[in-house]
Amino acid sequence: MIIKRNFNPIRVFQYVKSEVLFSLLVSLLVWWAYENQISVVALPFSISAILGSALAIFIAFRNNNSYGRWWEARTIWGGIVNSSRVLARLIITFTDSHSHQANYDNVRSEAFKKQMIYACIAWVHALRLHLRKQENWDEVEPFLEKEEFKSLEGSQNKPNFIQLLIGKKIYHAMASGVLGGFDSFQMEGQLLALANFQGGCERIKNTPLLRQYDFFTRLFLFAFIFLLPFSLIGDFNKMGVNFMMIPVSLTISFVFSILAKVGEVNEDPFENRITDVPLTAICNTIERDLREMLGEENLPEKMLPENGFLF
Amino acid sequence: MIIKRNFNPIRVFQYVKSEVLFSLLVSLLVWWAYENQISVVALPFSISAILGSALAIFIAFRNNNSYGRWWEARTIWGGIVNSSRVLARLIITFTDSHSHQANYDNVRSEAFKKQMIYACIAWVHALRLHLRKQENWDEVEPFLEKEEFKSLEGSQNKPNFIQLLIGKKIYHAMASGVLGGFDSFQMEGQLLALANFQGGCERIKNTPLLRQYDFFTRLFLFAFIFLLPFSLIGDFNKMGVNFMMIPVSLTISFVFSILAKVGEVNEDPFENRITDVPLTAICNTIERDLREMLGEENLPEKMLPENGFLF
Amino acid sequence: MIIKRNFNPIRVFQYVKSEVLFSLLVSLLVWWAYENQISVVALPFSISAILGSALAIFIAFRNNNSYGRWWEARTIWGGIVNSSRVLARLIITFTDSHSHQANYDNVRSEAFKKQMIYACIAWVHALRLHLRKQENWDEVEPFLEKEEFKSLEGSQNKPNFIQLLIGKKIYHAMASGVLGGFDSFQMEGQLLALANFQGGCERIKNTPLLRQYDFFTRLFLFAFIFLLPFSLIGDFNKMGVNFMMIPVSLTISFVFSILAKVGEVNEDPFENRITDVPLTAICNTIERDLREMLGEENLPEKMLPENGFLF
Amino acid sequence: MIIKRNFNPIRVFQYVKSEVLFSLLVSLLVWWAYENQISVVALPFSISAILGSALAIFIAFRNNNSYGRWWEARTIWGGIVNSSRVLARLIITFTDSHSHQANYDNVRSEAFKKQMIYACIAWVHALRLHLRKQENWDEVEPFLEKEEFKSLEGSQNKPNFIQLLIGKKIYHAMASGVLGGFDSFQMEGQLLALANFQGGCERIKNTPLLRQYDFFTRLFLFAFIFLLPFSLIGDFNKMGVNFMMIPVSLTISFVFSILAKVGEVNEDPFENRITDVPLTAICNTIERDLREMLGEENLPEKMLPENGFLF
Amino acid sequence: MIIKRNFNPIRVFQYVKSEVLFSLLVSLLVWWAYENQISVVALPFSISAILGSALAIFIAFRNNNSYGRWWEARTIWGGIVNSSRVLARLIITFTDSHSHQANYDNVRSEAFKKQMIYACIAWVHALRLHLRKQENWDEVEPFLEKEEFKSLEGSQNKPNFIQLLIGKKIYHAMASGVLGGFDSFQMEGQLLALANFQGGCERIKNTPLLRQYDFFTRLFLFAFIFLLPFSLIGDFNKMGVNFMMIPVSLTISFVFSILAKVGEVNEDPFENRITDVPLTAICNTIERDLREMLGEENLPEKMLPENGFLF
Repeated sequence: MIIKRNFNPIRVFQYVKSEVLFSLLVSLLVWWAYENQISVVALPFSISAILGSALAIFIAFRNNNSYGRWWEARTIWGGIVNSSRVLARLIITFTDSHSHQANYDNVRSEAFKKQMIYACIAWVHALRLHLRKQENWDEVEPFLEKEEFKSLEGSQNKPNFIQLLIGKKIYHAMASGVLGGFDSFQMEGQLLALANFQGGCERIKNTPLLRQYDFFTRLFLFAFIFLLPFSLIGDFNKMGVNFMMIPVSLTISFVFSILAKVGEVNEDPFENRITDVPLTAICNTIERDLREMLGEENLPEKMLPENGFLF
Repeated sequence: MIIKRNFNPIRVFQYVKSEVLFSLLVSLLVWWAYENQISVVALPFSISAILGSALAIFIAFRNNNSYGRWWEARTIWGGIVNSSRVLARLIITFTDSHSHQANYDNVRSEAFKKQMIYACIAWVHALRLHLRKQENWDEVEPFLEKEEFKSLEGSQNKPNFIQLLIGKKIYHAMASGVLGGFDSFQMEGQLLALANFQGGCERIKNTPLLRQYDFFTRLFLFAFIFLLPFSLIGDFNKMGVNFMMIPVSLTISFVFSILAKVGEVNEDPFENRITDVPLTAICNTIERDLREMLGEENLPEKMLPENGFLF
Repeated sequence: MIIKRNFNPIRVFQYVKSEVLFSLLVSLLVWWAYENQISVVALPFSISAILGSALAIFIAFRNNNSYGRWWEARTIWGGIVNSSRVLARLIITFTDSHSHQANYDNVRSEAFKKQMIYACIAWVHALRLHLRKQENWDEVEPFLEKEEFKSLEGSQNKPNFIQLLIGKKIYHAMASGVLGGFDSFQMEGQLLALANFQGGCERIKNTPLLRQYDFFTRLFLFAFIFLLPFSLIGDFNKMGVNFMMIPVSLTISFVFSILAKVGEVNEDPFENRITDVPLTAICNTIERDLREMLGEENLPEKMLPENGFLF
Repeated sequence: MIIKRNFNPIRVFQYVKSEVLFSLLVSLLVWWAYENQISVVALPFSISAILGSALAIFIAFRNNNSYGRWWEARTIWGGIVNSSRVLARLIITFTDSHSHQANYDNVRSEAFKKQMIYACIAWVHALRLHLRKQENWDEVEPFLEKEEFKSLEGSQNKPNFIQLLIGKKIYHAMASGVLGGFDSFQMEGQLLALANFQGGCERIKNTPLLRQYDFFTRLFLFAFIFLLPFSLIGDFNKMGVNFMMIPVSLTISFVFSILAKVGEVNEDPFENRITDVPLTAICNTIERDLREMLGEENLPEKMLPENGFLF
Repeated sequence: MIIKRNFNPIRVFQYVKSEVLFSLLVSLLVWWAYENQISVVALPFSISAILGSALAIFIAFRNNNSYGRWWEARTIWGGIVNSSRVLARLIITFTDSHSHQANYDNVRSEAFKKQMIYACIAWVHALRLHLRKQENWDEVEPFLEKEEFKSLEGSQNKPNFIQLLIGKKIYHAMASGVLGGFDSFQMEGQLLALANFQGGCERIKNTPLLRQYDFFTRLFLFAFIFLLPFSLIGDFNKMGVNFMMIPVSLTISFVFSILAKVGEVNEDPFENRITDVPLTAICNTIERDLREMLGEENLPEKMLPENGFLF
């Protein structure tokens, strides 16, 4: 996620390099031909206007939907923060609520709290790696039992596997008396929420924005850039300022290219890029919050933006 | 679902063949008449502009709603993935949670887990076939008991029948002691979610996007294409480039036709076409995930896109 | 609901008759006055453009909201299909789940299942008649006990009365042992869903789309149609094709009138018209599905579209 | 809420009086100056076009959000209708469901049903008065016990006070045996829904649509009306019909003023005006429905629209 | 939040100072050059029109999303009002509902009610300070026990810490018999709601509206303002009113700058500014309502708008 307010013009240019260079080429050719009296076709400006408005429908549609995907992804991760915290709170308060019972064993209960909350942290990190298709599973290792981590390595869908693990731990605790009553019932509510959040992320990850909109936006953008100098040269010629057509054509092409690109970079929010939803920072927040709730003190450092990007 | 980024121009052309050919015909006629001094009417360009903007309202409306239908269908199937996984997890953890009880019978419980999870897989495949109006019910056969499959064949709404089956299995298990306590209560939550997802899919399947919008979009598109050459010829004639009217008219007609068609192909997401929500791939994912959760190893192969399409 | 893809031009014309005839009249008058050198005012086309775009804001607003109402109504009825099925499933599985208990009486339980499911069907039909303000309550009669039907006739809000009836049956069954445990608790969830669906339908039925938008859309449409020939005649006169102003003016008026009407017909989805949400067909589906779940065989025939309309 | 389809032109005019008179004044001045050769500035029409489109963004934004507020308010009150009915149904069926128990006292139970349902009606009327800032609390008096009404008079937030009252009655009934089991648990669901509906109404009431949008819409509307005659006079002068500029300028100003006002009147739906959500009629419906459910017969008369307005 | 209807022109000007001054500078230069026959380039107005419409897409997008963020924030705080009230009601009615039990201790129960409700008030104030990054935690002190406040000071996420505290109090009360049965279960529902509201606020606070939209809106706005005089001067020159180009250029620049700024100020609703969601006033309402429910009488005064702003 970009945090800084002003962008590096060179980086911006790189995003729309091909469009701008294409525009420059066509503009120069049209201008050169006109200057040299080589018969070249001047089109009425209304052609560009009508194409521009059709292009705008596509671009606006795409911007809205790209942003919608990004924001949904961010909202889901906001939900993961909440549900993790609530689940951790339930683990702590429910386990402690049995402290007045006969079979309460403080060591066993404390171990249960730590194991469960660590498993939640493991799930969060695993979901991040799973979505970004990264393979450094050792980041998850400290939060699981040795055997659990081994089985995890063999599984296809790792966050799903950890969910199953957490579920099993709950019913084991219910049976042993660490938990009791309706504790499992209420914890299931948060497990369900987390499962649904995972599903939501996978849906966004696995379903690109309909390719039709991407392909035709690019096609029509190039068509628009191509026709623009032809439909500008007539008016500029009448005013006797042929050469001005080139910067104006470049400016308009630049604006429409940026409009199209801005949508594109937000389409896929889990791609390990600077425009991603900042999963690493969110996972760091969750880890810090949950370990603080456990009473731990040597928390990992809070992640801060680097060079204006939060990753 | 289309995965590839670039489209085959010939296939694209086929989608808008009739519109483009109609445009070509009218343009040629108008140009030929003008060239041969046959009195032909030149209209002001503003006519096309005002019609184009009215057309744009219709097209934008339709694009938004078509995409909304497609994305809702995709979201529902994302929900089916989640709820299936959660239901499978509940089946496993609940059944195992009674392992410390006196009347626990390991063989019976394992059989129950397999039967239930297979029935969930059967439901998913049945819903896919039901929505796409396909008849190869043998795909469902391996996941049901013989008698169950026979009764299924006689029923009208097959996924609904399997739901009833799953429901009955739960209460049978509650009575026999395989399940107990509030297990059925919590499983009902996921059964309800699946029933609602089925209903959502049937709603989209059975209710086409209002025909009025389809019919008048097509009507006005052809009217626009028809009037376009008349309203272009005047300006091009003034600039002395009559012949250029033809490619420009074709380009604009092509752009508006594509705008209209892009919406059309997403309207109905369960029609066994390349633009469908990829039901077969989603069902494959669910089958693999659920059978892995059961501990099975000879999973069906993961479905990959073929020629850039995921089906 | 309209199913057919192509419309009868005569019916289409009837919808916008008054607008088109008004346009014809004004156009002819303007043309005739111009031809006869009667001083008539030619307005710049930009007047029509600016009015047209203001009109477009109104029309787009109304189309979106009309369609939103229609689709919400359809979604609610989709929800009624689901919740009826789920409730029927619960009735069956819950009643049967007590078959191993000492006080289980098969005849009594089967009668309860039939009575309850028939009452659900009665509720669905009653809601349909209630929304469409129809009075043929005999359609509901076969699904209720004689006395129940008599009391129904005296009640104001008939679907609400049937809800109360279903609620009472549940607690009667809880007391008599036909149901038990948390059965009523879970059934209440579906009864609540059905009550909310009824409320949603009544809200749409009783609250027309804000009249302001209807009135001013019509007013501005006629103003636009009136001014159009004046603002066209100038340009057509310059090109020497005065008479062409008439068909062009008619075409544009027709397009804007259709844009306005398309929204209007979807505004009210429960009016016993061909553009209604197809309540009769949906009720038929529910009746067939629920009676099949009961094991009945002489189901009513499936309703099919007639002449391209599903009612 | 306006029910009638056609509006009184005089009332319409009053809504946009100041805008139209301002437009008339400026138009007349510009026309008079032009006629008398007093040098006056003619602006190109494109100035009005570009300002008009900026204005349109504001107006469309405001219309959408005003209508959104109105419709949300209507939906909330639709929800209040549902939840009141459901709560009433639960009160009746739950109270009656204990009729087979040993400590059932018919008189006490009937009194409880009446007291509870009357308190719900009191809450509904109190919320209406609270939102409209009316003080005729005697409308609530018949539905509360004497002492309750006295305490109500001293409280700040009266609907909130009645909620607390209803809550207390439930637990009193649980303790005395009028209710039992999970009855309170299920009733809480509807109480919660009603509390959330109250909160939703208060949010809309206490948060005006952002003033920025209101202020700048008005500012830009007057700027647009001011510049319009200057940018029209040039074109009309060329066509030699100076005087026609006045009605055209008035018409366009009228249309944009109406566009702006239509949004404004729907912004605040609880202001005791004819454009309000019809709270009085909705409260009347709830009172009639709930008292009918109690078996009462001398119901208040159904409220009908007066002069085309439902209040 | 701004309550007053009319704005101070000087404050308005300050918001768009740099844009307006930049516009003035460019306009004056272009006019001066033209007057002095220094060859300056006149561009066709259509350049500004096409850039203006591209800019409008960005601005409309941003306005919609900024307002969406503001309104979501307001809705969340509306939800906090409701859930606090409901939780307070549950605390009171549940605690009192055990008054007929043997181990009921009136003093202990009253102390519990006060402690719990005060902790809710503490949470609300803490969330406000947390979101606005203020440090005056002494505002929270009166509502917590001494030791609790000390531990609070050491914690990272203070509202989260108070949630944990409230959770612990509930289970302590369940163990001691102040509460019982399903009381904790139902209270958890409101605690969960509050936790989700906190998460929603943090999401909005920590995720600025995508910087791309901010940066390019500003960039294109300045580009538009820069090109405007060039594209106006031609038309004004033809009409012989060169000097009028300056006020017109300023007006259009002002309108577009305001359009862009209006969105900007609503983007971040928790920044301790006059355009914030009025957190202080909402916290005041909650404190007053909750303390009244406890029966307290020396409530803090109701906060009223100052100078037309509610803070």
